[in-house]
Amino acid sequence: MIAQDHLFENLWEVWLKGDHYKWRAMRTNGISEKYCTGEASPYAKFEQWAKTLPYTLRNPLYHWSHLELARYFGVYDSLNGESAASIYDSCSSQLQSKEFSCRNLMRKMKVEVACTTDDPIDDLKAHEQIAKDGFEIKVLPTFRADKACTVTSVESYNEYLDLLSNKSGIEIRSYDDLINALQNRHDFFHSHGCRLSDHGLSTFYSVKDPHEKIQSFFAKVRNGKSLSQNKLDQLQTSILWELSKMDHQKGWVQQFHYGALRNNNSDMVNQIGPDTGFDSIGDWPAAEGLSGFFNHLQSKNQLAKTILYNLNPTHNHMLATMIGNFQDGSVPGKIQFGSGWWFLDQKDGMEQQMNTLSNLGLLSRFVGMLTDSRSFLSYPRHEYFRRILCNLLGEDMKKGILPDDQALIGNMVSEISYGNARNYFGFYS
Amino acid sequence: MIAQDHLFENLWEVWLKGDHYKWRAMRTNGISEKYCTGEASPYAKFEQWAKTLPYTLRNPLYHWSHLELARYFGVYDSLNGESAASIYDSCSSQLQSKEFSCRNLMRKMKVEVACTTDDPIDDLKAHEQIAKDGFEIKVLPTFRADKACTVTSVESYNEYLDLLSNKSGIEIRSYDDLINALQNRHDFFHSHGCRLSDHGLSTFYSVKDPHEKIQSFFAKVRNGKSLSQNKLDQLQTSILWELSKMDHQKGWVQQFHYGALRNNNSDMVNQIGPDTGFDSIGDWPAAEGLSGFFNHLQSKNQLAKTILYNLNPTHNHMLATMIGNFQDGSVPGKIQFGSGWWFLDQKDGMEQQMNTLSNLGLLSRFVGMLTDSRSFLSYPRHEYFRRILCNLLGEDMKKGILPDDQALIGNMVSEISYGNARNYFGFYS
Amino acid sequence: MIAQDHLFENLWEVWLKGDHYKWRAMRTNGISEKYCTGEASPYAKFEQWAKTLPYTLRNPLYHWSHLELARYFGVYDSLNGESAASIYDSCSSQLQSKEFSCRNLMRKMKVEVACTTDDPIDDLKAHEQIAKDGFEIKVLPTFRADKACTVTSVESYNEYLDLLSNKSGIEIRSYDDLINALQNRHDFFHSHGCRLSDHGLSTFYSVKDPHEKIQSFFAKVRNGKSLSQNKLDQLQTSILWELSKMDHQKGWVQQFHYGALRNNNSDMVNQIGPDTGFDSIGDWPAAEGLSGFFNHLQSKNQLAKTILYNLNPTHNHMLATMIGNFQDGSVPGKIQFGSGWWFLDQKDGMEQQMNTLSNLGLLSRFVGMLTDSRSFLSYPRHEYFRRILCNLLGEDMKKGILPDDQALIGNMVSEISYGNARNYFGFYS
Repeated sequence: MIAQDHLFENLWEVWLKGDHYKWRAMRTNGISEKYCTGEASPYAKFEQWAKTLPYTLRNPLYHWSHLELARYFGVYDSLNGESAASIYDSCSSQLQSKEFSCRNLMRKMKVEVACTTDDPIDDLKAHEQIAKDGFEIKVLPTFRADKACTVTSVESYNEYLDLLSNKSGIEIRSYDDLINALQNRHDFFHSHGCRLSDHGLSTFYSVKDPHEKIQSFFAKVRNGKSLSQNKLDQLQTSILWELSKMDHQKGWVQQFHYGALRNNNSDMVNQIGPDTGFDSIGDWPAAEGLSGFFNHLQSKNQLAKTILYNLNPTHNHMLATMIGNFQDGSVPGKIQFGSGWWFLDQKDGMEQQMNTLSNLGLLSRFVGMLTDSRSFLSYPRHEYFRRILCNLLGEDMKKGILPDDQALIGNMVSEISYGNARNYFGFYS
Repeated sequence: MIAQDHLFENLWEVWLKGDHYKWRAMRTNGISEKYCTGEASPYAKFEQWAKTLPYTLRNPLYHWSHLELARYFGVYDSLNGESAASIYDSCSSQLQSKEFSCRNLMRKMKVEVACTTDDPIDDLKAHEQIAKDGFEIKVLPTFRADKACTVTSVESYNEYLDLLSNKSGIEIRSYDDLINALQNRHDFFHSHGCRLSDHGLSTFYSVKDPHEKIQSFFAKVRNGKSLSQNKLDQLQTSILWELSKMDHQKGWVQQFHYGALRNNNSDMVNQIGPDTGFDSIGDWPAAEGLSGFFNHLQSKNQLAKTILYNLNPTHNHMLATMIGNFQDGSVPGKIQFGSGWWFLDQKDGMEQQMNTLSNLGLLSRFVGMLTDSRSFLSYPRHEYFRRILCNLLGEDMKKGILPDDQALIGNMVSEISYGNARNYFGFYS
Repeated sequence: MIAQDHLFENLWEVWLKGDHYKWRAMRTNGISEKYCTGEASPYAKFEQWAKTLPYTLRNPLYHWSHLELARYFGVYDSLNGESAASIYDSCSSQLQSKEFSCRNLMRKMKVEVACTTDDPIDDLKAHEQIAKDGFEIKVLPTFRADKACTVTSVESYNEYLDLLSNKSGIEIRSYDDLINALQNRHDFFHSHGCRLSDHGLSTFYSVKDPHEKIQSFFAKVRNGKSLSQNKLDQLQTSILWELSKMDHQKGWVQQFHYGALRNNNSDMVNQIGPDTGFDSIGDWPAAEGLSGFFNHLQSKNQLAKTILYNLNPTHNHMLATMIGNFQDGSVPGKIQFGSGWWFLDQKDGMEQQMNTLSNLGLLSRFVGMLTDSRSFLSYPRHEYFRRILCNLLGEDMKKGILPDDQALIGNMVSEISYGNARNYFGFYS
């Protein structure tokens, strides 16, 4: 969409078409699927959303939605059933203007760098096009190899490996072939400016079995046989370790988003697919797995800069202490406790993440907010984050818990909001 | 007691005789068992409670107790060792008046509907008596079949099944007989106005074994043999599923109270029985079990309206996201995250439940407070809940986090406090 | 150091030399190991710490450090890179004076009793010296038998048992010999004024195997063989139970610090040893283990006064309800929920512990703060605790949640800060 500098047809397309957060709220509000992902008209869907919005009071959707209407469209009225039609018309009409193209929406928000999420088999043609066009905002890929690491079904895994063989030019017969093929794509991504990887997983494990065993696990799967969950976990861990070493070798930042329990409503997932609002927070333990996973890399001196995002906030304290074990003094804040993610991407969730990080680590070295909303209208969530950060610090200053020193605290805000990330990610080096 | 419109002899009987919350506080305060459940006189026990009360500052008992003294008896003094005698005399004397009969205590609190908790083998004679008397407050049964679902000992389980056979007129030889007998009692409860079930369990499971296996597990127990914990869990889950389907078929609301670790002090439980203050919060995982349990019902289109109450607050976020997976748009707030329960029935616990629900679901669709205190003096806990709710919202309005719109927020309060429950439970349909 | 009334050479020695909290912060801040535990000069290390301190805003280190500079040295300036030299010189110069000897630092803080942590094989010569000198502050040992309870390696465990044999004069060949040897040292500690034990463990277990099995597990280890983790857990539990019974018999208070996941960075632990800042919070379940562990002792009427410290705050609610199961009315607050420990020893952690205790138990019976910092400069953390306590209560008074009664609440503060501990520990009886 950025490569084509896409223009949106109406407010539904840019705002509701792909937003499972809103669909979940609508279903909870008693709105039928027809108006979420079904066959109703764009405006009919929007109207149901508008009628739902007043019921989202205290949910981040209420703040986000009004902030987005205000910042992009200059709409300051409350959205509800009565204002639905006029707001829809006003915004949809504004969207016709070139001023609201994808690139201009990003310019409006003063974006400097945006990282997309891409599969290793992606050809990155869109990124090449964007670079060729001389678009002044850096749009870089992120290496997300979940499909290469996680065997959800033996059939689809093997199909994926065939595609990866194809794209890398390395025929994947063995575990070592797989790693070589991934290295090939890792190199390709690097040459396109990629400086970040990202991984989604349930929880962390540490592998005890020797390399030969892992090779044999892979061979079994590649031959269409199934593996026990324990062996799948070991295989996934081994592949992740290899990817981690590639990240370390190239100076990338690796990210891990862990703890989601996905696809809980099998009927709906069968009907409308994954990532449509039927995921939730898991409650697996993680401390021993995290410790073993990162100690392995640390003991080989191959631990890259790392950001860890937990989905279950009960892990906050555990995780904020875990990162301390692997800070080696080489880079400020080398191992990061990631900002409140997905269900935790709201005022309380972000405050709890920042309070825990403050108490157990160094908030000052935090690289700040990440939005994985995949929406051109969601940049104001960074403003939301910064306001929440400032509010926390300001309250502390008022109470005398922090020094009432605007220069000192102001600098901290500026670093967390901008400077730390700029130094940390190396997009400009 | 309601059927007989019982009058209480004194403040001890109505306030202390059955209240394990107060006993726990007294034991913690160094008061011997004699004054909790032992042979001391009613006043001696009350006096020890009065001396303990000042040590409960910041515990909900302090607020509850003074609110109850104020609302029922017009007593506004602090209760402590010095005021014990005069308060005891004043309240006990008021209790002699017909104005303080069970039914009048309920009228005083403007109760519209009260649901008792009843075993399937209960004959509901008391409910029939109350209805026959034309008592204007609806007093309805709740179907609580824990004894039919949970095998704590093979002997007592079989004794219970004999009673259930008797009451239902269906001789229980097989698993299918058991389900038929429960269906028989479910129908009987429905004809007496029951619209709610309730279940207590440690955590949730999902059954993998086929029906024939479950039948064989049951047969083994019915023949006096013991089962492994895993098989007991599967048996319990299967029975719960059948009960869920009955609830769905009749349009009832099903409730699950999960996560208590009971009977931790075996000596005291042997001496004075269960439910006397020796229970606490368990820490079993629940996410995968909850997902599998409700997905089974959802995939059969037999998921009833459901309220889930967790005892361990570390489950709040997981649970508040889990309910979202099963909202099907048919009823607003079909799957509910239940109000702070038991140990969480206090200001912080209720606030955390409401904040989590707000951030991850729709607070506006919340059916509000449930008290399972089984005490005629505990209705002010609903006032306590409403004040806490209003305080949360008012603080947000003051901070500018919610719109400063009394009509909008006032309506939300009214719905959570009254309207949502009225619509949801169907007591009037 | 107290026996010798040690004088410190400089601010680094007294403040940084052994403080892994500060090292962790420095590593996170990108400071190399050379300046933490390495070969840099005392001042060079201090300077790096001073430069790091402004980055600890919102971490307890920021408050602690400035409070310590103020209370001991009269330094009220902010410590940072610019003020490093002058503050180092001023404090180091003050440290030369006899006024800053170990004993005088304790006198300055008005310490009445300090309990050290000692291995059962310690000869307690230092304690004898201190007592002989007539030092007016009681310095008492604490019996910490972790090395006798926990088999981390079979070799080092057997080496330890040899030392224990030697010191006790009881040759340890069997499990029963071990218990006798520990009893011998327990008696010895008691005769030196010890009234406290302390135990560090991952989580709690309950033993099902009979005594003979435990004896055979021990015999195996004593013969240099390894055991499965499950058997090691049972062995540890059995030994802890025997120690608990000794504590009960002598009227001691037993303490359990549980939940740390230690030595996560194996390279660093190999290089500079344990307890250097590579530990974190574990996430093992504990409810069933705690229940079984303490029920065993309770059912034998051998449950001593107990303080339980959890490291993972997700256990707060579970633990605060668990202690209620074993309050027997013999002593106010017999089973205590310990104050925020280690990573939780900060404002939020202490507030959450006190709020949870308040809601689920009796805050009024709390014995208050424990510092395990092992530093002569850390006594102001008790002031910090008291300020946090007063702030919680004062806020509640302001909001009308607590009675605005200075005598009532003031007495509560005084008891939690001083009186309860004095009554509970029996150091003066």
